[in-house]
Amino acid sequence: MNAQQKLLARLKKGNHICVGLDTDISKIPMYLHSEENPIVKFNRIVIDNTAEFAAAYKINFAFYEKDGAAGFDNLLKTLEFIPDDVLVIADAKRGDIGNTSDMYALSIFNYFNFDAVTLNPYMGHDSLLPFLNYNDKINFILALTSNKGSADFEKQKLADGTYLFQKVIESVNDWNANKNCGVVFGATNLEELKDNITSFKDLFVLLPGVGAQGGSLQEVVKAFSEKNNINFLINISRALLYLDKTTEFGKKIKLEMTRLNSEVLELLGI
Amino acid sequence: MNAQQKLLARLKKGNHICVGLDTDISKIPMYLHSEENPIVKFNRIVIDNTAEFAAAYKINFAFYEKDGAAGFDNLLKTLEFIPDDVLVIADAKRGDIGNTSDMYALSIFNYFNFDAVTLNPYMGHDSLLPFLNYNDKINFILALTSNKGSADFEKQKLADGTYLFQKVIESVNDWNANKNCGVVFGATNLEELKDNITSFKDLFVLLPGVGAQGGSLQEVVKAFSEKNNINFLINISRALLYLDKTTEFGKKIKLEMTRLNSEVLELLGI
Repeated sequence: MNAQQKLLARLKKGNHICVGLDTDISKIPMYLHSEENPIVKFNRIVIDNTAEFAAAYKINFAFYEKDGAAGFDNLLKTLEFIPDDVLVIADAKRGDIGNTSDMYALSIFNYFNFDAVTLNPYMGHDSLLPFLNYNDKINFILALTSNKGSADFEKQKLADGTYLFQKVIESVNDWNANKNCGVVFGATNLEELKDNITSFKDLFVLLPGVGAQGGSLQEVVKAFSEKNNINFLINISRALLYLDKTTEFGKKIKLEMTRLNSEVLELLGI
Repeated sequence: MNAQQKLLARLKKGNHICVGLDTDISKIPMYLHSEENPIVKFNRIVIDNTAEFAAAYKINFAFYEKDGAAGFDNLLKTLEFIPDDVLVIADAKRGDIGNTSDMYALSIFNYFNFDAVTLNPYMGHDSLLPFLNYNDKINFILALTSNKGSADFEKQKLADGTYLFQKVIESVNDWNANKNCGVVFGATNLEELKDNITSFKDLFVLLPGVGAQGGSLQEVVKAFSEKNNINFLINISRALLYLDKTTEFGKKIKLEMTRLNSEVLELLGI
């Protein structure tokens, strides 16, 4: 199955929650610290308890890179526990000149064998082309992010009256000839989401910002549902991973994941 | 010595060449392939033959990440051979929401112990703040890059008549209270460089694009020299690293590095 097939199979079942593995050693249950590899053990328990309903997993590279080579090994070991039929996104926000992006694409799509990646569009089309040339992968390009700083540049008004993030969405649509593109759109920007939802066309939309950052799951699902658009992924990281600090944390995560999935199904009327 | 002291000591001597270690296994001399670690051996020879005149080394993360954990190990081993008094820049182009950028900053400034980093401003001030909080490091923020795609977003005209990259430079000046900021400005954009050179104020300027990408070393040095601005670094990667494929490649690199440094000194009238 290629990335598009994996993702669509889940979306068609009404699974829209993307589990963000932003695993922070200081936040996982203390009892895991006596394990040989606490991070990987924690991730495995999270995956085992969420895989049934997960639309995707998103692995945040920063949380692994902080441990250098050992972190990259933890990342590889974590990937082994994710079932083959669930999309895995490298949340790496890469983007650089062509010969450098070639190498980043080799890292993410060949060495780590991810299905999808997040990319930063600042440097323009040729900086993303080495990723876009992989037809069987999905490239989620930052449009409007969930943080306060999105006002600094992303929401700058351009001379033609549109905003920079709208120009990015328009460009990503142009780059989507191979149907392997998506955008990142922060769920904290609800008004902008509603105002721009028709501009996504065939793009997959990855929405961070629900949970710890304050975005509303209900409002996001409603916005897409009203347009009969199923191509959206709602990322949940901290609000799912760190629910409980006891040996029962896996069960608590499974309960919450089931509840979130049911809530989405109900909102979609499935 | 902190990062600023290291860099200024070299700049004051007229050393402005930054050596970019974009080491590509397919381009290094064949005879090194029989070494235990060809990449690290190659880097060591490059460093030994350039350290006298180098203003800085810039390590391009993509070329190491493509080999996963082994690549990160090569990166760490390479750092051991760089003399303590020469600035080392992590060319990583990071930038993400706050709690994620915290982790990227830990990776680059703590785990790898770099003096400086390149950052992507798309997500705004709070996405870079974890880096900016390190007073003794230097943060080079992308303004106008050397690639063709710089026209796509960086050169977009804003509603106020300025260009996005100018807005970024203005913002980075605002963020420079701790004198730990710089910008990346592609040497391929000569007209824009001349037109914006006074906007750099106290910022360090890292200029890629000379050599393989077609930028002119002479024109860049002249532009800064005319303004009595010494805070610039001209990056050279491919045009220096892959001059020769024989066992004499180190000597060739030393000759070329000496020639480049002399050329800069002459242009500066030192």
